Amino acid sequence: MKIVRPTLLLDRERCIKNISFMAEKAKKHKLIFRPHFKTHQSSEVGTWIKDARITKCTVSSVQMAEYFANNGYNDITIAFPVNILEIDEINALSKRIKLNLVIESEETALFLKENLESEAGIFIKIDTGYHRTGISYDNTDYIKKVISLLSSNLNFRGLLTHSGHSYSSKNRDEVLAVHNDTLTKMTSLKKAFPEALISIGDTPSCSIADNFEGVDEIRPGNFVFYDLMQYFIGSCTDSDIATALVCPVVAKHIERDEVVLYGGGVHFSKEFIETDEYGRIFGIACDFNDKGLGKINKDLILTSLSQEHGKLKVKNREVFDKIKIGDLIAVFPIHSCMTANLMKSYMTFDNNHIETMR
Amino acid sequence: MKIVRPTLLLDRERCIKNISFMAEKAKKHKLIFRPHFKTHQSSEVGTWIKDARITKCTVSSVQMAEYFANNGYNDITIAFPVNILEIDEINALSKRIKLNLVIESEETALFLKENLESEAGIFIKIDTGYHRTGISYDNTDYIKKVISLLSSNLNFRGLLTHSGHSYSSKNRDEVLAVHNDTLTKMTSLKKAFPEALISIGDTPSCSIADNFEGVDEIRPGNFVFYDLMQYFIGSCTDSDIATALVCPVVAKHIERDEVVLYGGGVHFSKEFIETDEYGRIFGIACDFNDKGLGKINKDLILTSLSQEHGKLKVKNREVFDKIKIGDLIAVFPIHSCMTANLMKSYMTFDNNHIETMR
Repeated sequence: MKIVRPTLLLDRERCIKNISFMAEKAKKHKLIFRPHFKTHQSSEVGTWIKDARITKCTVSSVQMAEYFANNGYNDITIAFPVNILEIDEINALSKRIKLNLVIESEETALFLKENLESEAGIFIKIDTGYHRTGISYDNTDYIKKVISLLSSNLNFRGLLTHSGHSYSSKNRDEVLAVHNDTLTKMTSLKKAFPEALISIGDTPSCSIADNFEGVDEIRPGNFVFYDLMQYFIGSCTDSDIATALVCPVVAKHIERDEVVLYGGGVHFSKEFIETDEYGRIFGIACDFNDKGLGKINKDLILTSLSQEHGKLKVKNREVFDKIKIGDLIAVFPIHSCMTANLMKSYMTFDNNHIETMR
Repeated sequence: MKIVRPTLLLDRERCIKNISFMAEKAKKHKLIFRPHFKTHQSSEVGTWIKDARITKCTVSSVQMAEYFANNGYNDITIAFPVNILEIDEINALSKRIKLNLVIESEETALFLKENLESEAGIFIKIDTGYHRTGISYDNTDYIKKVISLLSSNLNFRGLLTHSGHSYSSKNRDEVLAVHNDTLTKMTSLKKAFPEALISIGDTPSCSIADNFEGVDEIRPGNFVFYDLMQYFIGSCTDSDIATALVCPVVAKHIERDEVVLYGGGVHFSKEFIETDEYGRIFGIACDFNDKGLGKINKDLILTSLSQEHGKLKVKNREVFDKIKIGDLIAVFPIHSCMTANLMKSYMTFDNNHIETMR
């Protein structure tokens, strides 16, 4: 492996283990498994998922749907409120593949009724407490109204939610509390809309929970790679995190116990988490060798990022002394989706370069 | 202009005005003007800068130096501590163009002495208080030691600093305090190293200050576009901000006075600022028409971002009622460098698509 600049390492074995863990879980609970592909955005990782006999996927944009339609996926849900300005692209897609769209308003339902040229499945977005998008779970009148507007090519499929507030959980119990609350709310809706598929989505709940009563479909995405955010929530261990950004050391500052990495906000993204132990962090280093990624290394904490620079606090003087300018240090990202989106390519430990959509 | 998805608008007139403002200022103060190109990363914007007869530039990576060398720039400073792993690429560049490198350690000086095959100018990075990189301004002994290691093809050019701590200023007075402190520290160094060019860099200081006594070169970058961070510091007015991300409205939530935009962290970046008036913000809307960008619109505040979604708080019910699903709303970014880096292309108001390096 010749690495000279920030490079996103992908541990294929870990990734495939994560895929099979979630596929097995879905199977055990008799759930439709429709993983979200916005995390990896890569046709190659898509084939690893196909190898686990998963043929449905979720994406977050029309362009991403086009990319995966061009790469062998023909059953795709765009889990983002329909952007009516992209109706031409949506029409082209709905002619080629089995397309599911997500709506949450009468306006969009009416627009699609008039403008959608082929059939599409329709999910209604439900808000169970994240308060980003969706119709409130208790507003059954409005849900009914939107469903009543659907016509013959707009096939009502179900009710879809994303409990994104689980991402701010501090531990597994908090995740389960969010998940159980989501189950209660969605199950109550299932009574009002018995024909509806119930689709839920977040990686923390899908990783941790073992009760999916009343749920028909899961759409986690981040689980293919996991990251430090999930590690601190308790969704995964450090041995599950499948990507790390490897960065050259360009400077050392002993007076501050700091090492400067070539690796900044344009590589990691500016995503951070607040931790009890280390305050605000932008990454933590991990071991790696020629074969794959190793354990987390809490002696090396990424405490700040500018455009191309990363500041790594070294908690141990012996470790500091061993680091040399020109060394490579691998760092687990806070949010692998954002890091992968920026890096746009992965390097596996068998020296393959994997590209993402552009 | 047909826009259907998040698109980075570039107001060419504003950009050219910003370029000529800074070029004039440099001329007035008899400063070498070596703008930082990491903000725009675009050969086209580079030609607008060339039109102002600016032929030197600064970049933040070897790859960016290669890109601008391929696009007509032959006097480039890579203002990032030399990454010794890229020595092959650095050697290739130093043969083609007038290249300046930045170092801050004996180790890197010795490495270059042994491995650099052609001539390069060398700047020593000085830390005047930002504490990211550089040798502390008062450590003249170590500065001397590093300079003493330079050989015939490593031509000592000067002392370079970046007062990045000016970015956390709350107003123009705080910027001037940082700037004046930098001047004092760099001027004291000029006495110890009279042959050294003194190079400073940050956009807030270069925009606001009118005293550059003892400075030989300025390297601001952000000023070509400015952004909300600079607006809140006082480096620019809203009529100077030259880019805005235009985003389709995909949902409305009257119960929270919120509009959901197609425009998230993969478009804006997750950069935010804390403001007294609005708390944590990720953007503020602005007016625009077919001709260009307009004034800031403080009725529309971007309060949160996920991967593709932006939540826009609408402060005025009348404004809320007028917004329709499918409308386009332009939003000034917090940090235009990061937004441009993610979007990788601009759309000008005469309908040109401008690409950046990939």
